[in-house]
Amino acid sequence: MEHESPHREVDAASQPRRYTKPRRIAVLTAGGDAPGMNAAIRAVVRIGAAAGIEVLGSLRGFEGLVYGNFKDLGGRAVANIIQRGGTVLETSRAGEFRTAAGRARAAENLRYRGVEALVVIGGDGALQGSAAFADEIGINVMFVPASIDNDVPGTDYAIGFDTAVNTALQAIDRIRDTAFAYERVFIVEVMGRDSGFIALEVALGGGAEAVVVPEFDINVDDLCVRIEQSQLRGKRSSIIVVSEGPRTGGALAIAGAVKQRLGVEPRVVVLGHIQRGGAPTARDRLLASRMGAAAVQGITDGHPPALIGEKRGQIVYSPLGEMVGEPRRLDPDLFKLVEVLAT
Amino acid sequence: MEHESPHREVDAASQPRRYTKPRRIAVLTAGGDAPGMNAAIRAVVRIGAAAGIEVLGSLRGFEGLVYGNFKDLGGRAVANIIQRGGTVLETSRAGEFRTAAGRARAAENLRYRGVEALVVIGGDGALQGSAAFADEIGINVMFVPASIDNDVPGTDYAIGFDTAVNTALQAIDRIRDTAFAYERVFIVEVMGRDSGFIALEVALGGGAEAVVVPEFDINVDDLCVRIEQSQLRGKRSSIIVVSEGPRTGGALAIAGAVKQRLGVEPRVVVLGHIQRGGAPTARDRLLASRMGAAAVQGITDGHPPALIGEKRGQIVYSPLGEMVGEPRRLDPDLFKLVEVLAT
Amino acid sequence: MEHESPHREVDAASQPRRYTKPRRIAVLTAGGDAPGMNAAIRAVVRIGAAAGIEVLGSLRGFEGLVYGNFKDLGGRAVANIIQRGGTVLETSRAGEFRTAAGRARAAENLRYRGVEALVVIGGDGALQGSAAFADEIGINVMFVPASIDNDVPGTDYAIGFDTAVNTALQAIDRIRDTAFAYERVFIVEVMGRDSGFIALEVALGGGAEAVVVPEFDINVDDLCVRIEQSQLRGKRSSIIVVSEGPRTGGALAIAGAVKQRLGVEPRVVVLGHIQRGGAPTARDRLLASRMGAAAVQGITDGHPPALIGEKRGQIVYSPLGEMVGEPRRLDPDLFKLVEVLAT
Amino acid sequence: MEHESPHREVDAASQPRRYTKPRRIAVLTAGGDAPGMNAAIRAVVRIGAAAGIEVLGSLRGFEGLVYGNFKDLGGRAVANIIQRGGTVLETSRAGEFRTAAGRARAAENLRYRGVEALVVIGGDGALQGSAAFADEIGINVMFVPASIDNDVPGTDYAIGFDTAVNTALQAIDRIRDTAFAYERVFIVEVMGRDSGFIALEVALGGGAEAVVVPEFDINVDDLCVRIEQSQLRGKRSSIIVVSEGPRTGGALAIAGAVKQRLGVEPRVVVLGHIQRGGAPTARDRLLASRMGAAAVQGITDGHPPALIGEKRGQIVYSPLGEMVGEPRRLDPDLFKLVEVLAT
Repeated sequence: MEHESPHREVDAASQPRRYTKPRRIAVLTAGGDAPGMNAAIRAVVRIGAAAGIEVLGSLRGFEGLVYGNFKDLGGRAVANIIQRGGTVLETSRAGEFRTAAGRARAAENLRYRGVEALVVIGGDGALQGSAAFADEIGINVMFVPASIDNDVPGTDYAIGFDTAVNTALQAIDRIRDTAFAYERVFIVEVMGRDSGFIALEVALGGGAEAVVVPEFDINVDDLCVRIEQSQLRGKRSSIIVVSEGPRTGGALAIAGAVKQRLGVEPRVVVLGHIQRGGAPTARDRLLASRMGAAAVQGITDGHPPALIGEKRGQIVYSPLGEMVGEPRRLDPDLFKLVEVLAT
Repeated sequence: MEHESPHREVDAASQPRRYTKPRRIAVLTAGGDAPGMNAAIRAVVRIGAAAGIEVLGSLRGFEGLVYGNFKDLGGRAVANIIQRGGTVLETSRAGEFRTAAGRARAAENLRYRGVEALVVIGGDGALQGSAAFADEIGINVMFVPASIDNDVPGTDYAIGFDTAVNTALQAIDRIRDTAFAYERVFIVEVMGRDSGFIALEVALGGGAEAVVVPEFDINVDDLCVRIEQSQLRGKRSSIIVVSEGPRTGGALAIAGAVKQRLGVEPRVVVLGHIQRGGAPTARDRLLASRMGAAAVQGITDGHPPALIGEKRGQIVYSPLGEMVGEPRRLDPDLFKLVEVLAT
Repeated sequence: MEHESPHREVDAASQPRRYTKPRRIAVLTAGGDAPGMNAAIRAVVRIGAAAGIEVLGSLRGFEGLVYGNFKDLGGRAVANIIQRGGTVLETSRAGEFRTAAGRARAAENLRYRGVEALVVIGGDGALQGSAAFADEIGINVMFVPASIDNDVPGTDYAIGFDTAVNTALQAIDRIRDTAFAYERVFIVEVMGRDSGFIALEVALGGGAEAVVVPEFDINVDDLCVRIEQSQLRGKRSSIIVVSEGPRTGGALAIAGAVKQRLGVEPRVVVLGHIQRGGAPTARDRLLASRMGAAAVQGITDGHPPALIGEKRGQIVYSPLGEMVGEPRRLDPDLFKLVEVLAT
Repeated sequence: MEHESPHREVDAASQPRRYTKPRRIAVLTAGGDAPGMNAAIRAVVRIGAAAGIEVLGSLRGFEGLVYGNFKDLGGRAVANIIQRGGTVLETSRAGEFRTAAGRARAAENLRYRGVEALVVIGGDGALQGSAAFADEIGINVMFVPASIDNDVPGTDYAIGFDTAVNTALQAIDRIRDTAFAYERVFIVEVMGRDSGFIALEVALGGGAEAVVVPEFDINVDDLCVRIEQSQLRGKRSSIIVVSEGPRTGGALAIAGAVKQRLGVEPRVVVLGHIQRGGAPTARDRLLASRMGAAAVQGITDGHPPALIGEKRGQIVYSPLGEMVGEPRRLDPDLFKLVEVLAT
């Protein structure tokens, strides 16, 4: 990754400049929390302060906009938070903000306080609301992707993903200690209902025998054959990593199928919410700091509503409206690599 | 804890000395693996070597005795293992060893190799087999308690417990990040089917609102009242720690009851097998080193079959046969402390 | 460790009861910070609240007493701090409080606010000032020992010690990875200017070849002979753990002596301040919670000024004045165990 | 980062194909060890096995080539090593291999064993020797960059860098706990004698007040002004991150200058060798797995001697000879970001 100055994917010249540098902006965190959100908030506040912009924090995500629940964020308000998981601005389900009436009320609350632009830090769910808000209300919105599932379009990495993968990997390392001590098949379920990014990186990093993700079909017979072959080659234990959710069936379904075919009772481990918390990794703190800075810079530059992304190591701005619904693809080569390396 | 020279709870003078210093002993790990087992193996081998005793490792627990599957353990064989989770000697279900025929075969295999005493590192399940073996065969057995559940009698702490508690606590800390970001009730299930040691220490250390253990009854209505009161006092989130197993019902049962009464859907996290692995803590490495050393010393001193324990900071030897079935009690004061501190 | 109800080492009946249950107390943290101080503050506040006692926090240790810098600590003020290193009440050098004039001013500030008793959480340095204050002013003082060096008399363990040992041990584990990859002698300096508790436990837990502590003399020639012998036995690398400070000479002095005799250049690692921070371990959180609770209980029971200790797993109260200058002894058996286990 | 199939920066068509798919290759680790080296070895062995290629491990780096010290690496030989720091093949200074005579002897040893290609996993120092060897002997060499300093040309990231940064960051987080508790200036020295990659990422991720790296001059007067201003804004503590070595002067020199100007005694922490060890992060395991796989693929494709790099998320092959001495540049924008975010 080379760190270059922000590059705009859209041709700025072709866009009518509608936005000017504001004196006051707001920042909020929406949807499921992700490690690194605090680092992003800190960057927005500090870069804002350096640019002479006041920053308000909307509490509990969009709910704070709807009910006028704001907090002044001076530089000291974000001291000593860069290393903390969760979000000091708290978060909640969008609720009222999903309705046009709720969004109108949010707009009034912002106008009343003289807030001229908004930074939203959130996942795929918050993206749609942010785009609708920018479109309906005409307020400038910069969207910073934060999602442990890494399922936000327009960026290679969302804030929180690297931390979640490392947390899950440490869990796999612990399980491996036991797996080596005892003859066992372990089925480990990780987060990622609609995307296998966590599962794939955890499987590769954890040296798993196989990975089951929503994006690619897997034949359970093949999976069982692979487990048997690996045991014939002398492996005492096998670890299978599975993404949660109905598309894979989750760990329990896979375990049931394996038991039926192989006659062994696999141990099931569902990692669950531990993947969401914890101190962010270096990579997530850096990504959050750079994206938070780019969001404020986008606003001061008068850039139209955008999703801030990191693509091939560079910060890019993508038009916010066009990003909604964009699919994210998993690398099939990495998927195959799991199998070859487990051999 | 003061570290004194080993004290014998039994009056050595009243016991006929049947055992003499052997030239060769065996060591094995039995039952579920626990972090620190490797540190104990290392201590047995190194202290044995210093006393001029050869040490054989029986592979896969008692199975190695029954099938004559041994490995020479010189000093270098245990280099660089003190920090590793799991057990380099592997483990397995007792299987054949549960039968008198299996134990007789094990005795023959030991006699054939000139093994005169045995160190068993294991949990409550292995204790019974060890006592039966010492009694039937007349071989000296020193039992070193290793169990993440801490459910072995005759000792305040078993090897692996401190590591398991710290691992679970780190998971709670991660969950708390998210709990603070989002209004939620979390029910976290930890290990300990028959004993609430892990749950109690994790609840105290994690600042949980309540703890549910097999030893004490809990009224779910009271639990729900406590959650409601804590939310009235301004807490956005509650964490309830529950021991696994039928006696508490586990996290899912508690979650169901809470949902029915409070109408909120608690998040359930089952920590599972991650509590079993990982590098042992300082305390577990020390305990394992001291207990492994005491086991060899017990053998060289001609001490009759014993369970090595740490009580009030001191190493003590308890007669092996008398320990089987001894109950372990949970401290009711600590149990109450959880509630007061959560206020 | 059995958790029993607090036991008084002094005979309560022989002491005139001078103290009655107060309505308001203060708590402070003094001297070097230690992980678990926040857990102790939390316990004092919560147990105080449950007993109907208001708790004030004196900021920056004794400095807050002298300058009247207090903070109301309601139950919510200590939410979400049990897992944090450092101290939310901050700390500082005693300064003015070392003078009789300063202590008189502190007493006035306490009387002005109706503070009737004081809980001091600190190390050996703060102990003397606390005893002098209790003696001069006639205020009840409960002293809770917190010191990563574990150099406070009247207790087997001080708060923060277990965390510091585990932090140092994780550093040793990392160094061992490199030591095994590359032929090297490592000299690792840990904290403990006047006491070798950290060094001893780290050396045992880290599988070090030798340990140098202030309490026991070591012959550098013997040390070099041991390194040479261990390399003859096939060890590629050696790790020597050394307590900091003039009594051992520190890592650099030992490294110089080793280089002169063996002709190899040892790598020196000074762990330093990383040993002081970080989330407290389970053991430190428990110890802090129990000691904080016992401090408030001591006050409500009208117990005279005392140092709260944990001895052989039990909470004990020792007369505060008698504890100043009491020596702490290192276990010589553990010291010898390092050498035998390294063989 | 998008994971695409390997892309060749050099135009393969313009190069004469001199290399054919070998039946036997060797792999070695050279120079300072880095976390992830084992994951790279595992990938080379496993991908080799899948391609029908036997893999020999040369022990202790180039020393194994010179003295014919090899080890057969079947698939099981690399089981359970992906999560381990250090290198199972060990490493050492190049020694004899630096001479033409040594390299000739190495070539003979390889020919004698039928080794037709070589994978070298190492840092900037090993690069030169590898290029010379490929050039002189005509053997195909694939170079996999592994260096915690990240100072290898031809790649954005070298194996081990991400782990080292995260290790240093965890240390900073611990120091920050103490820094907040106590008024202090901390100067923290990290690795990177000739390059400030670690220092820069650690400073950004740790929220440091300033960073001193070899690449950019810093005025100590400005640094002191910045510390003073940050304290005027209410910060109790400051953390300055400094790269080791003569170009910055290291932490001690900076501390001396700060003391002279500000009159306060900064605390110095030298992180040292703990940055080199530990379990690799997810990112390092993935990078190592992909690079190890690409090295074998390069060999089977008959690709001429190359350095395997990851640039903008893609695996690229750069001509080995051309990479020696290529400079690596630090991003000046990130350098400035430290200052703005610390405001």
